[in-house]
Amino acid sequence: MEIKNRFSISAKRMSRSVIRELLKLANKPDIISFAGGLPSPETFPSEDLLDITREVMQKSARVALQYGSTEGVLPLRDLLISFLGKYGFNIKPEELIITTASQQSLDLVAKIFIDRSDPIIVENPSYLGALSAFKTYGCRFLTVDMDEQGLCTDKLRLQLEELKRTAGEGSQYYQNMPKFIYTIPDFQNPTGITMSLARRKELLEIASEYDMIIVEDVPYRWLRYQGEEPPMLGAMDTEGRVVNLFTFSKILSPGMRLGWVRANPVIIDKIVQAKQATDLCTSPLTQKLAEEFIRRDLLEKRIAANIELYRHKQEAMMAALEKYMPKAKGLSWVKPEGGMFLWITLPPEMDADEMFKEAIDRKVAYVVGSAFYPNGGGHNTMRLNFSYPSEEDIDEGIQRLAGVVKSRL
Amino acid sequence: MEIKNRFSISAKRMSRSVIRELLKLANKPDIISFAGGLPSPETFPSEDLLDITREVMQKSARVALQYGSTEGVLPLRDLLISFLGKYGFNIKPEELIITTASQQSLDLVAKIFIDRSDPIIVENPSYLGALSAFKTYGCRFLTVDMDEQGLCTDKLRLQLEELKRTAGEGSQYYQNMPKFIYTIPDFQNPTGITMSLARRKELLEIASEYDMIIVEDVPYRWLRYQGEEPPMLGAMDTEGRVVNLFTFSKILSPGMRLGWVRANPVIIDKIVQAKQATDLCTSPLTQKLAEEFIRRDLLEKRIAANIELYRHKQEAMMAALEKYMPKAKGLSWVKPEGGMFLWITLPPEMDADEMFKEAIDRKVAYVVGSAFYPNGGGHNTMRLNFSYPSEEDIDEGIQRLAGVVKSRL
Repeated sequence: MEIKNRFSISAKRMSRSVIRELLKLANKPDIISFAGGLPSPETFPSEDLLDITREVMQKSARVALQYGSTEGVLPLRDLLISFLGKYGFNIKPEELIITTASQQSLDLVAKIFIDRSDPIIVENPSYLGALSAFKTYGCRFLTVDMDEQGLCTDKLRLQLEELKRTAGEGSQYYQNMPKFIYTIPDFQNPTGITMSLARRKELLEIASEYDMIIVEDVPYRWLRYQGEEPPMLGAMDTEGRVVNLFTFSKILSPGMRLGWVRANPVIIDKIVQAKQATDLCTSPLTQKLAEEFIRRDLLEKRIAANIELYRHKQEAMMAALEKYMPKAKGLSWVKPEGGMFLWITLPPEMDADEMFKEAIDRKVAYVVGSAFYPNGGGHNTMRLNFSYPSEEDIDEGIQRLAGVVKSRL
Repeated sequence: MEIKNRFSISAKRMSRSVIRELLKLANKPDIISFAGGLPSPETFPSEDLLDITREVMQKSARVALQYGSTEGVLPLRDLLISFLGKYGFNIKPEELIITTASQQSLDLVAKIFIDRSDPIIVENPSYLGALSAFKTYGCRFLTVDMDEQGLCTDKLRLQLEELKRTAGEGSQYYQNMPKFIYTIPDFQNPTGITMSLARRKELLEIASEYDMIIVEDVPYRWLRYQGEEPPMLGAMDTEGRVVNLFTFSKILSPGMRLGWVRANPVIIDKIVQAKQATDLCTSPLTQKLAEEFIRRDLLEKRIAANIELYRHKQEAMMAALEKYMPKAKGLSWVKPEGGMFLWITLPPEMDADEMFKEAIDRKVAYVVGSAFYPNGGGHNTMRLNFSYPSEEDIDEGIQRLAGVVKSRL
């Protein structure tokens, strides 16, 4: 029977993620893959979680295995409020909701704000999963370039000024201006860049001036290997205009599918309504596990151990790049202060998309940088993940990749 | 700051579920609540799940705690394919996806089919969670009445014939006709009615004649306390037009947030795309637990034990209704062959919405039937849940409820 003609406009806009299809290629056992964004399985606290499961099944199976409230398990929300208290947040319970990990947070934020053809502002390049979540709702992407200090706030200001001219006033203004500015200030995905304190202040000032909402995605915050951490935008915000997306995926386990959103209560209330119709509630079972994990002070220990592990992996990748990559004009990378990725810029005449097949033939995989540019470009860039592969594979894989690059110089 | 003016059209359409707000009232400890739709905590296999967690954490923590594929954990999908094989299904792997429970399945089905103001057909009354999932996408509800045999197929045919007249042809036809027919054939929520075999056949014939998709929601299938079970529409369908929504919530645990969808591969492929942007994947941890639960042959034992427990609770509620409810013209209920609910019709002049406050004062709660009528009506109906309360509470609660009804006759 004919089905395609029945699909919604939004469904017709969807496609299988290019990256996910590429990742399938990269999944063959003899390929060393720098393509994913997976945490290392060494970081999974399976014994602790088993021990915690014992306690949860004995003491609170009636909560853990039952339906829960859409807002999330109360003691977990309280613990997260305390946790964020250490980072300058002062959060009321109605400002926080547990979600089924950050991809759901991105989807819910998109759902409550984006109507078809609404503009939103993203860094160029930006996280692919966010771009797909937003695209489903038919937004237009307005991109703002980044430099080594993060989002170029001067360029942002110019764009907003231009938009303001024709935006109208009152409710018109809010419908015509970008619905929000999406940013990943810490160790940005894919570039690894951290937004400087000066830029953070300026971004908040601009947001205030043009009355904008900022969606601050904070997945890598607790993976800092060097340097001092600037405060989060959300912690600096005095006007309730920052929405923070947090996840357990990089600090505990992605398989538990847990994240949380902190925002203005009006926004949280609308997210609760959207989530009710979307998946009713996040798993109380995985929530209770996370709750007890935090209560036992295991989260901060886990974070410290992750940092130690990933710092070494990052250094291994930096060393391998130094060792194997040819010295060539236009070929460069920068050491990020944290996160899971290195961003490689190839000479402008090289094409990482086209090079991908050869890399696979040589048994090494990466993510083509162009996938992160919502409006095109970036064909001479690629993203390498260092959190998942072993140090041996990092050395061997970079050697293979350098071979591919050399052959094309 | 002003936020409401920025919300999307879809977000402006959302509201906190009336029922969920009523349920909060019903959550006070001294109130006997027949309002929820919760499984009894006695049915939660916490010891088995702990034992299974031990095995999963020892043998497959690297899968369980990592990101998984959007389609779901492969061995679980294979086990579900075998499970449904016993019920007349012959399913290929590309026809099945694991979801984050049925509310997500409802959301994804709505997302891939419904554009604003598209008509869809629902039973009148129908499941509230489905109605809210669909409503978010801005559909119009065309309702078809039910009788004791289920959906009135003759009325459905008349409606479709009427719609067909102005629907046009080709892709126009698919855009103008209802995107799908949503039905809960077994122990329908809220009425408890099971669709007869004759009606099932006729529904499939009508769907074929008007080239319609049927969404068959099957949450209560494995809660049958008496009578013979007719085959599922999906198992009778030879044309790939039935989409089946299944859930673990009523047979294992709602807290694990697990369901699955079986459909035509073209539909499953689009659901995969939609889910990728929505929550990436369902928790591999809870999937691995369910997988091992089925592999150990615990699911069918659990189903048998649930049936035993709920049958008694249903009988307790039937007995209490007989014992306490006044005999009055127009006051009636029917014993469903399974499920979790009894549906009470009050005399037409009585209003269950307005009676609710008095019931709460008398420390008993129900769900107002009107909530299940998408286009209004049903004010003299109410839904009572018997799976959650104890037999003692059922007796006491029905006595209280009968008191309220009596006082208003």
